[in-house]
Amino acid sequence: MSIKKEALLKHEEWRGKIEVISRAPIQTAEDLTLAYTPGVAEPCLEIHKNPENAYKYTRRGNLVAVITDGTAVLGLGDIGGLAGMPVMEGKCCLFKAFADVDAFPICIKSKDTDEIIRTVELISDSFGGINLEDIAAPRCFEIERKLKEKLDIPIFHDDQHGTAVVTAAALINALKLAEKKIENITAVISGAGAAGAAVAKLLISMGIGDIILLNSAGILSRGKAYTNDAYTEMASVTNRKNITGGLADALKGADVFIGVSKPNLVTREMVSTMADKAIVFAMSNPVPEIMPDEAKAGGAFIVGTGRSDFPNQINNVFVFPGIFKGALSVRAKDITEEMKIAAAYAIADMVKNPVPDYIIPKATDKAVADAVAKATAEAYKKSNTY
Amino acid sequence: MSIKKEALLKHEEWRGKIEVISRAPIQTAEDLTLAYTPGVAEPCLEIHKNPENAYKYTRRGNLVAVITDGTAVLGLGDIGGLAGMPVMEGKCCLFKAFADVDAFPICIKSKDTDEIIRTVELISDSFGGINLEDIAAPRCFEIERKLKEKLDIPIFHDDQHGTAVVTAAALINALKLAEKKIENITAVISGAGAAGAAVAKLLISMGIGDIILLNSAGILSRGKAYTNDAYTEMASVTNRKNITGGLADALKGADVFIGVSKPNLVTREMVSTMADKAIVFAMSNPVPEIMPDEAKAGGAFIVGTGRSDFPNQINNVFVFPGIFKGALSVRAKDITEEMKIAAAYAIADMVKNPVPDYIIPKATDKAVADAVAKATAEAYKKSNTY
Repeated sequence: MSIKKEALLKHEEWRGKIEVISRAPIQTAEDLTLAYTPGVAEPCLEIHKNPENAYKYTRRGNLVAVITDGTAVLGLGDIGGLAGMPVMEGKCCLFKAFADVDAFPICIKSKDTDEIIRTVELISDSFGGINLEDIAAPRCFEIERKLKEKLDIPIFHDDQHGTAVVTAAALINALKLAEKKIENITAVISGAGAAGAAVAKLLISMGIGDIILLNSAGILSRGKAYTNDAYTEMASVTNRKNITGGLADALKGADVFIGVSKPNLVTREMVSTMADKAIVFAMSNPVPEIMPDEAKAGGAFIVGTGRSDFPNQINNVFVFPGIFKGALSVRAKDITEEMKIAAAYAIADMVKNPVPDYIIPKATDKAVADAVAKATAEAYKKSNTY
Repeated sequence: MSIKKEALLKHEEWRGKIEVISRAPIQTAEDLTLAYTPGVAEPCLEIHKNPENAYKYTRRGNLVAVITDGTAVLGLGDIGGLAGMPVMEGKCCLFKAFADVDAFPICIKSKDTDEIIRTVELISDSFGGINLEDIAAPRCFEIERKLKEKLDIPIFHDDQHGTAVVTAAALINALKLAEKKIENITAVISGAGAAGAAVAKLLISMGIGDIILLNSAGILSRGKAYTNDAYTEMASVTNRKNITGGLADALKGADVFIGVSKPNLVTREMVSTMADKAIVFAMSNPVPEIMPDEAKAGGAFIVGTGRSDFPNQINNVFVFPGIFKGALSVRAKDITEEMKIAAAYAIADMVKNPVPDYIIPKATDKAVADAVAKATAEAYKKSNTY
């Protein structure tokens, strides 16, 4: 049976991939008096006295909302929140399976940025963290920024930061093998949407030498007029030599290619113009920017993709479960750059002896989330006085 | 240990009374391809083609939101949504334990009626039904009415209709024992808030002879000017003789007293002025409008309260789990009067041989919800062509 057909059958059999169960016994009359009236009045009053007690007496401290407007679901695009729910439910399953974090999917029936922000704000007391998912750029940037300003719980747009952290993790080990230092390298990023911009920002935070970022029209450079403010912003912090042109121009002499864009944009010839020990992360899914054998034929030293059927699957399932688990464990009010960088190093460290075809753990390795959680919590504590 | 202390300890031990688990296995790489990418794209596309498929491929068909603004939590009043969450979680536990319906608690951080309505509307695609909870009157009426207009999933304000249905159920059996017909009786309802108004409306739908409804200022009657529109509306459909005065005036010759108001409003003497075989449902909680022994001393034939430590606990745990289970099973677009009446008769029928001290099932009887679900689904099918 094809995966498509089997997935459909399985989804019908599951009748939903999440389930809400009771942690309190509800059998006897006494159970009811403790979990419900009259006993339940006591934790209510304690929370009313001090809102922090919500973390003690409700599920808030282990509960993340997975929120979408359905405008950028997988590679399917703007199919709407309702149609995106199987993805959101799947994400919630991953949260639970990898980090024992409870997650609940919410789709918002609006494409209005202010309305989405307001809705999340109004329901945020029910959750200990907000994972934004599959919201199109550039709207996702404003939604995340404003929610971070308004709310004192962690906000994390996985399509941005999950991708950025796991890419950084793969890069850390790849650079070790290539014997290059991050401050000396240039990385070319194809795709200047949510993921591409976030990868660029995180690598800049980590001290990368230079980044050349491309959208579908070519290299982002200063002096050009962009209607999308995000492009203007990114052009101002990348591309030190302010070169112009397309992907072939960008890749000449570059150390790293990072693709979060479209299938088949990169040729073997382009790879051959890159620097020695070139690193190619072609993460367009399911069809990468260049197939691994082609990239290798062009001289690539290390190749990673988003796919499970090639070596080095760069998958953000390593990131969000552990980062939220860590953030929730120390009641972090935010997910900071320091926490993301710590998560990237923690993921990289899970590969004890990296070799070119094994720079990143297997996607099913459930030990990664705990390591990420610990590192993330430590990083938050270090940068915040209690 | 006191119930208060034990409830607090238990809540701390539980660390939240709900938990979101995965129904899909997430262990192997193959599991990931089916429950998440790339397999998950298929159910998304099917829902995109036909929104009804959300009921087939996601949890929507078994999932209810328990939504509050925290303005009327238990007897605690306007303590806010966050502080009300232990009650909302408890409600979700009851949904699961009694009817295997998944329920998820959402508190909305606003007291603005329009904003609450809009928020529920915007997140409603995530749910198959909406249970409104502990929202103060008269705001709750407008919120429920507008949501019923806007959404094609069942909306149910439990404080209104749950109370109404279970009161009607108790009344059905009490009238059997008193050998009275509903069309010949007068019921006095103390409390004209959400619960009182809903009880009055349901009993009117069931053909009751007359109702006299009182708020804290006395009997609602035509000709008086009320700033609260709900009072004006209720005065226009109750009190046929248009009497005025207080509770003592109302109770003279009345067949039934229904209290959803405050402790100790009714005296033994008042009960003694009621009609023969008087029925007294004093449901103020935890302290009823009159204690059962006092009511009996005044001549009451049947007494019910909201408490588990007296006979005849009139508890809406009989109602909401089964009504939603039934409504979800037939994909009802609404919860109609017919469904509520059917639920009331189904609950009453669960007591095979009613006697004055046993007119309503025990609160822990989990067979009730199934009977209610069946009756509710039947009633919906009868009044709707498929």
